[in-house]
This record gives sequence, structure tokens and C-alpha cells, in this order.
Amino acid sequence: MTATFDDVYFMKKALLEAEAAYEKGEVPVGAVIVVDNRTIAKGHNLTETLTDVTAHAEMQAITAASGFLGGKYLKGCTLYVTLEPCQMCAGALYWSQISRVVFAAPDLHRGYRAMGASLHPKTEVVRGIMEEEAATLLKLFFKAKRS
Amino acid sequence: MTATFDDVYFMKKALLEAEAAYEKGEVPVGAVIVVDNRTIAKGHNLTETLTDVTAHAEMQAITAASGFLGGKYLKGCTLYVTLEPCQMCAGALYWSQISRVVFAAPDLHRGYRAMGASLHPKTEVVRGIMEEEAATLLKLFFKAKRS
Repeated sequence: MTATFDDVYFMKKALLEAEAAYEKGEVPVGAVIVVDNRTIAKGHNLTETLTDVTAHAEMQAITAASGFLGGKYLKGCTLYVTLEPCQMCAGALYWSQISRVVFAAPDLHRGYRAMGASLHPKTEVVRGIMEEEAATLLKLFFKAKRS
Repeated sequence: MTATFDDVYFMKKALLEAEAAYEKGEVPVGAVIVVDNRTIAKGHNLTETLTDVTAHAEMQAITAASGFLGGKYLKGCTLYVTLEPCQMCAGALYWSQISRVVFAAPDLHRGYRAMGASLHPKTEVVRGIMEEEAATLLKLFFKAKRS
């Protein structure tokens, strides 16, 4: 068996981050940033833990990746995130000029597309990778919250 | 003479933050967050210093205000910022449900309005307070950069 560094491989890493958020009672969203098949940053939603609306998974991953690379532009990088970015995260990704964004589950209400926000025109977007797994985790979370 | 805690008074504080950014070679944008006439947070653009696209003045002020208040919602708060927020900062302000946003200079290209992003429907927006001063500082910065 050979390891295949494809979008599913890295989205599984983002899902592990989402599970870490779930275990902390946070809305389960996780993200990793990859360059040349190396994971250089990861993050999961910590808005409740940090009492900070800016502490989305993607924002932490962007900050960590920039720190790792020593530069604020993420050209050549791919962000894997388990939920469609919101307009805040899309705005940060816009400024970073990241090359690719891969997201699992759509966010039909607060996702950047529904809100009218924009990624950078040079950013390639791929969606639906492991969508069912990511959406199931989110549904489990909100079901547990309601009960 | 009585001190008047009006929008001009607090925008002057945001302008002091913008000047601090200017002196560091950063695009000169500053922000403060005020509740009940008390300044509870301030920030200025540090994207170059921190090599981090998320380090806008507003983002830092939002994080600081949430830390001060011990909660992630900024209801009852006003953000004063010297330049119209971008879609990232508008997205963060959206999540914070901040009560008022007052900005000085418009950003016709990368401002949240031009980019199609949204503030929270409950957020009141006031614009143009000390617009000329804020715009002049930005023009000075970009003129110095070019020469």
C-alpha cells in the first residue's frame, strides 16, 4: 500500500481537527494548510474557548502558515477546511492570495458564497471532498446541543 | 471647556493608532472600540510586522475587546476605524454583532461594500467622520512608498 497525498488524505487531517473542536464543545470545524504535500499548519474552531469570534479554524491556520513560511502570502498553498469558509475567513484567504481552497460541507446560510463575499480571483476552489463525514459531525454537534 | 465624547473624539483616538501604524511602515489604519464612552480596545494594522494578513486594526481590536468584556459578542459597543473595513473585518464584525461601526475614509476597491460582504443587520453604520484626515494619512503613506 502506498500513501496517496490527495485531497481526501488531507481533508481527513482537517476532519481530525474538527473532531478536536467537537471534543471541546466547539462547533466542529477543522482546517489544515498544505504546501508540496507537507502539512505546515492546522487549526480548529476555538471561538468559545477563546471567547473570540475571530478564532475560526481557517484564521488560525492562516496565521500559523504565515508564521511557518515567514511571509504573509500563501501562494502555492492549499487550505483544507471541513466547512465552507464564512466571509471573514474568505476575506483573510483573499488577502493571502492562497492558491487553492478545498472545503467539505457547504454552509448555505453563512458561507462566503451565500453572504456575497469573494475569494481571490487566482484561488482555485474545490468542494464536496468528504462532505458527508464533515456534515455528519456538524449535525451530531447541533443535535447534542439541542438535547 | 468640557470634554465631549462624540464620534469625532473617538475617531481621533483611532487616528492616533493609524499614525502608530504609519511610523512602523504599515498601511496606516487604526481602530478603537468604545462602550459607554470608555475605550476598551485599540489596534493598528500590523500585517507587515507580524507577516500575517489577518492582523488588521479591527481584528486586533475585536479580539482585545472580547478579552476585556469576557464575552465574544460586542453588543453595545462601537468600533471606530479610520478606513472602511474589508470583507474579512466586516465578517468578524458580523459575528460579533457589534452595535455600531463608524469609519472615516471609504475604501472604494477593497472595502466590504465594494466586495459585496455584509455587516450584521443590527449594526448601525456611520461614515465620513474625519474622512479627510484619515485619507490624507493614507495618501501620504502610499506616496512615500512609491518614491
